[in-house]
Amino acid sequence: MRIGAIEAGGTKFVLAVGTEQGEIVEKTTISTEHPDITMPKVIEFFEDKGISRIGVGSFGPIDCNEMSASYGTLQKTPKTDWVDYPLGGTLKEALDVPVFIDTDVNVAAMSETKWGNARDVDTCLYITVGTGIGAGAYFHGQTLTGLSHPEMGHIKVRRHPNDDYEGTCPYHGDCLEGLAAGPAIEKRWGKSAKELADNEQVWELEADYLAQALTNYIYILSPERIVIGGGVMKQQQLFPFIREKVLHMLNGYVTSPYVTEREIDQYIVPPGLTDEAGVKGALYLAMRD
Amino acid sequence: MRIGAIEAGGTKFVLAVGTEQGEIVEKTTISTEHPDITMPKVIEFFEDKGISRIGVGSFGPIDCNEMSASYGTLQKTPKTDWVDYPLGGTLKEALDVPVFIDTDVNVAAMSETKWGNARDVDTCLYITVGTGIGAGAYFHGQTLTGLSHPEMGHIKVRRHPNDDYEGTCPYHGDCLEGLAAGPAIEKRWGKSAKELADNEQVWELEADYLAQALTNYIYILSPERIVIGGGVMKQQQLFPFIREKVLHMLNGYVTSPYVTEREIDQYIVPPGLTDEAGVKGALYLAMRD
Repeated sequence: MRIGAIEAGGTKFVLAVGTEQGEIVEKTTISTEHPDITMPKVIEFFEDKGISRIGVGSFGPIDCNEMSASYGTLQKTPKTDWVDYPLGGTLKEALDVPVFIDTDVNVAAMSETKWGNARDVDTCLYITVGTGIGAGAYFHGQTLTGLSHPEMGHIKVRRHPNDDYEGTCPYHGDCLEGLAAGPAIEKRWGKSAKELADNEQVWELEADYLAQALTNYIYILSPERIVIGGGVMKQQQLFPFIREKVLHMLNGYVTSPYVTEREIDQYIVPPGLTDEAGVKGALYLAMRD
Repeated sequence: MRIGAIEAGGTKFVLAVGTEQGEIVEKTTISTEHPDITMPKVIEFFEDKGISRIGVGSFGPIDCNEMSASYGTLQKTPKTDWVDYPLGGTLKEALDVPVFIDTDVNVAAMSETKWGNARDVDTCLYITVGTGIGAGAYFHGQTLTGLSHPEMGHIKVRRHPNDDYEGTCPYHGDCLEGLAAGPAIEKRWGKSAKELADNEQVWELEADYLAQALTNYIYILSPERIVIGGGVMKQQQLFPFIREKVLHMLNGYVTSPYVTEREIDQYIVPPGLTDEAGVKGALYLAMRD
């Protein structure tokens, strides 16, 4: 069985055809423009591939409640050309196959649990720190959804006493995303993350905000593994800082061996599927139903 | 079928016998002392009741992973007499019936979803604000567990600029529980919550901390209903303050109609089962498996 998989991101769409074993047999990338430009290219790619179903891990917010009339429709996204765009409906109509949609981060949590760095556990939190901050959870075979999908990047963290940057979030100013996503780093320091790679002060501050968030996620969700990806996390020096600060903030309250000095390196980890977590997650999403 | 139900709390145990319809046919309450004193009374109560199974909603932390060798055993609880006490194992051995254990707040989330103020939705967060602050989540027929059960009361919130109270939590000082549970209110203001009922400043501060927590829970879990109970919430004037502040903090980012001025009164609500949420949850826990 050949399965279609789409990682629909704010800057690019990854289109792939894969197998039930998680093997990607063909893949291409196109840039995200107006839906009238992007979507015909997506449909053209899949048209002659003989796929029986298609999975999509999408940027959001998006309605991913299968029972809803607007399942697969984008909502109030900052990508204004895509607001209210029926991504799922358009694919289904054009390709005449079942379409399964969840958020990019929820499907990444799924694929990391199936094939990646959380494949030995049942509960995984996947966080991406890039242009924005988002997270998805895959717990005991279900992604976490309720009212809508989570928007974990918008929690409040305590400001570092030496940081007076006002934050970039148009809704909340200095929420986690407003203080710690890529654009906040660039605007606060006036340089790109890459140019700041050797400035320890930058990454210590960044790690403080991310560790606060992870500590809250641990108290609220209690995942057995935390996978962190995204452009900002290419700065690998962040990992030891974050781990150390999470241990310090938990202060021994959570007694699991996973969150001790001995095992924390295996608890807070980069993605195992590197840049394919999204597209493989979309593949797995379509396989499951 | 008669089912045993226990709400095992830090100050009292509620013991009940009920039916599959959620009816409690007999109930008694005993105080929580040393297990050597309390447990023989528990066993004596159930011995001649002809129950076929028993459900327990317990204080924690407790191992509630059914696959674990120490399922039903208390962990590093502040009630030192109960540390490492095999609550589930003791009941099973003495009464020779299957025993099902989860946290007090997880089972309260279950019973509110089955019979209480969340019976029209699939995803419910139950929070108790009393001697401590705890929360449980029941999402699509599962309670939320991973590494362990959540410990949502220990998240960090931003300090109110006019509050310099250091907090009561022995692990984190000024985490949510340290700033906003009953003992923190009493110690900060030098009076009991009841005596402070008319002091608006007290409840505005309390609502600020609780609203911050609820906002974080909404971003991370996205529940369709939030039920808040516990001793501190007997101060009903807290509800309008909390609702208003949550709307202000979300600032329109979550677009569901549930979190709008029009519907927030039905979104953040007191328990429907009042003081029976725990024991009825224990009953439901035993019925489900």
